[in-house]
Amino acid sequence: MPRDVRMRGFAERADVEEVESFLRQNTTALLSEVVPLLECVGRVLARDVVAEVDVPGFPRSAMDGYAIRGEESFGASDYDPIAFGVIGTALPGNPYPGSVEAGQAVRIMTGAPLPGGADAVVMAEVCQEDLKAGRVEVSEAVAPRKNVGVIGEDIRKGERVLFAGRRLRPQDVGLLSSIGHARVDCVRRPRVALVITGDELLPAGARPSGAKIVDSNSVVMRGLVDRDGAESLPFQILPDVPERIAEAMSNQEADVVLVSGGSSVGQEDHAPRLLSQLGSLDFHGISMRPSSPTGIGRLGDAFVFLLPGNPVSCLAAYEFFAGPTIRRLGGRSGAWPHRVASWPLARKIASAIGRTDYVRVALEEGHAVPLATSGASILSSTVRAVGAVIVPREWEGIAEGDSVEVLLYDEDRSE
Amino acid sequence: MPRDVRMRGFAERADVEEVESFLRQNTTALLSEVVPLLECVGRVLARDVVAEVDVPGFPRSAMDGYAIRGEESFGASDYDPIAFGVIGTALPGNPYPGSVEAGQAVRIMTGAPLPGGADAVVMAEVCQEDLKAGRVEVSEAVAPRKNVGVIGEDIRKGERVLFAGRRLRPQDVGLLSSIGHARVDCVRRPRVALVITGDELLPAGARPSGAKIVDSNSVVMRGLVDRDGAESLPFQILPDVPERIAEAMSNQEADVVLVSGGSSVGQEDHAPRLLSQLGSLDFHGISMRPSSPTGIGRLGDAFVFLLPGNPVSCLAAYEFFAGPTIRRLGGRSGAWPHRVASWPLARKIASAIGRTDYVRVALEEGHAVPLATSGASILSSTVRAVGAVIVPREWEGIAEGDSVEVLLYDEDRSE
Repeated sequence: MPRDVRMRGFAERADVEEVESFLRQNTTALLSEVVPLLECVGRVLARDVVAEVDVPGFPRSAMDGYAIRGEESFGASDYDPIAFGVIGTALPGNPYPGSVEAGQAVRIMTGAPLPGGADAVVMAEVCQEDLKAGRVEVSEAVAPRKNVGVIGEDIRKGERVLFAGRRLRPQDVGLLSSIGHARVDCVRRPRVALVITGDELLPAGARPSGAKIVDSNSVVMRGLVDRDGAESLPFQILPDVPERIAEAMSNQEADVVLVSGGSSVGQEDHAPRLLSQLGSLDFHGISMRPSSPTGIGRLGDAFVFLLPGNPVSCLAAYEFFAGPTIRRLGGRSGAWPHRVASWPLARKIASAIGRTDYVRVALEEGHAVPLATSGASILSSTVRAVGAVIVPREWEGIAEGDSVEVLLYDEDRSE
Repeated sequence: MPRDVRMRGFAERADVEEVESFLRQNTTALLSEVVPLLECVGRVLARDVVAEVDVPGFPRSAMDGYAIRGEESFGASDYDPIAFGVIGTALPGNPYPGSVEAGQAVRIMTGAPLPGGADAVVMAEVCQEDLKAGRVEVSEAVAPRKNVGVIGEDIRKGERVLFAGRRLRPQDVGLLSSIGHARVDCVRRPRVALVITGDELLPAGARPSGAKIVDSNSVVMRGLVDRDGAESLPFQILPDVPERIAEAMSNQEADVVLVSGGSSVGQEDHAPRLLSQLGSLDFHGISMRPSSPTGIGRLGDAFVFLLPGNPVSCLAAYEFFAGPTIRRLGGRSGAWPHRVASWPLARKIASAIGRTDYVRVALEEGHAVPLATSGASILSSTVRAVGAVIVPREWEGIAEGDSVEVLLYDEDRSE
């Protein structure tokens, strides 16, 4: 099927909103896979779950005490206790095998099955057992069904307990365990291929030397891909050789390809041309700062993101476009995943109408301070920053003292 | 060294704040371990990191263009361009080997090392190169140092770039990569032993049957332990046999032991007695709902938490006491890790002065609705809930319509 190829020179830059809308419209969650129960926390349910059993599957005691026929305790008081013959014990997992007849009681622990014949539990605190005599004196009346958990009180057979699209919490998976699930249908985790190009790059773990710098973009991308619930495929740093880049970009296993470096319009920027030849380059050049050379397209079934090589541009382009797409493919929300805080702005932010800005800010004395740095190559600005402020395209900037919403980089609340 | 053993009958219950304060005072971060760079995201730095190199280690071009001696461009304009002889090309990772003399220019790409002799870069957009003639006409003046990233502009050698206690973000690890770190000293992840007891329990993955129910607490705990940055040690469900429980509780590998089930004062509740014999039972019985039978103590170097077997009690006791301790051992914040939202309360919550309550609430029409359920055994209430409201011990309850802070169970913002 031929694709709508819209080549854009940088003379015509797309709006951020236009690109976001394109991505939203073209992304649906991946198909499901079967996941072992203990690996399900954080995964997204692919279909509704209906309970096939009642929980509990038997009436159970909600107290430590004595199982009796409740109406036989009517009239019992401290002054006038009623005596029962103790005929045995019911423990969790070890029910009393017989039945409770008139005048009888069974010692029972919390969670133990209620013996047949009994319909209530008197709590131990109002009972006095005489072990030798095999009798217990009950000094408070209990109504039938008192202190008894009925069949299905937690979950009823046939009940729809969890819905497709749910990101499973620890307690959700606990519930799936309690209704006997060993495997769960979850949305498949997206697989992300990293294509890192640059003759100047040494692999992570090396020492920078001479004209060579150490790749940091793959390290940052892997961290974000993991945060967004996807899996990074194995990768290696590629030289700026078109054939190698084309081959890596065409990775059949990938749902998403992230190309870092060579995304612009310069001499060594092979990626946009290759993508438009092999698939579609839907956007190239976006009206934003940083990350304006970003390219976005598709190749086979995969989305391809051409991320600028400058570390801050790479990060911002990931956060605006690749991150939401990856999360949606995995069945999650495409919304910014960050916690948000509001602070007044310490200094104005200048922007331009028509352009969306991603501004790192530090926190100083309760104010958000825009980090004035020499640009998109300064990774340390994202380390010094507490988070980022987005200046929407309709705005010329933000005035000093205005309250700004900061997308926080840290996940924790401080103590 | 003898320990301060304060056995408490349930007649004397500790306040939540007292227990929290005890745990805070007795917890310090674990020692460090060396972690490979690519596994560091989310880990906590054990010591400050000082850069041993400059980034960049060479002056580099911030633009695609031509490297020249800036002062030679003074006076250049569209009407009166100045011509330079093009003597070669500088690419990232492939510097121009010679030096730029008077009247000369070197074609240069973003990120490439600035050739010797040059001190500025004119951007390509204001240049016209005649390849045949080997000349370029520059129609805009650039000052020396223009479009040049100086040595150390991102990170300076000797700079303290990250501080001990920092929970590493993806970009932090990217920065560590760029300064040549292959391994990082991080606070060791706490190791958590789960001791799940109960003759009534089947392992996760089994189908509930007869008087047997399927263990859900271990599933929930493992999810929370993972959320809190710790590692769950292998475990199996134990019968209610004191020797087996004592042995499992004494796991030498564990920094934290979570015992679920058998924590109360009933016939089969061995854990408190065992803990007070083998180590110290610092608290037993806490003035809270649910989770009042919770016990807390120490055994060797490990913290031991005796969590009630009822699933909601187990969850709440983990969140109040075990979770903060585990996070602090791992160098993280002990604060509640949840996102928070404020909504008005749809119905009053009744509590009691002196008791701390953990109340699950659902969200309906913009209001927090307390889930009225028959108690701590109803795991499905934590599945239906959007989060929990804490009613502090000083309060008698919370009135209908009052705004409450809800600790949200979900990590995502919705789209």
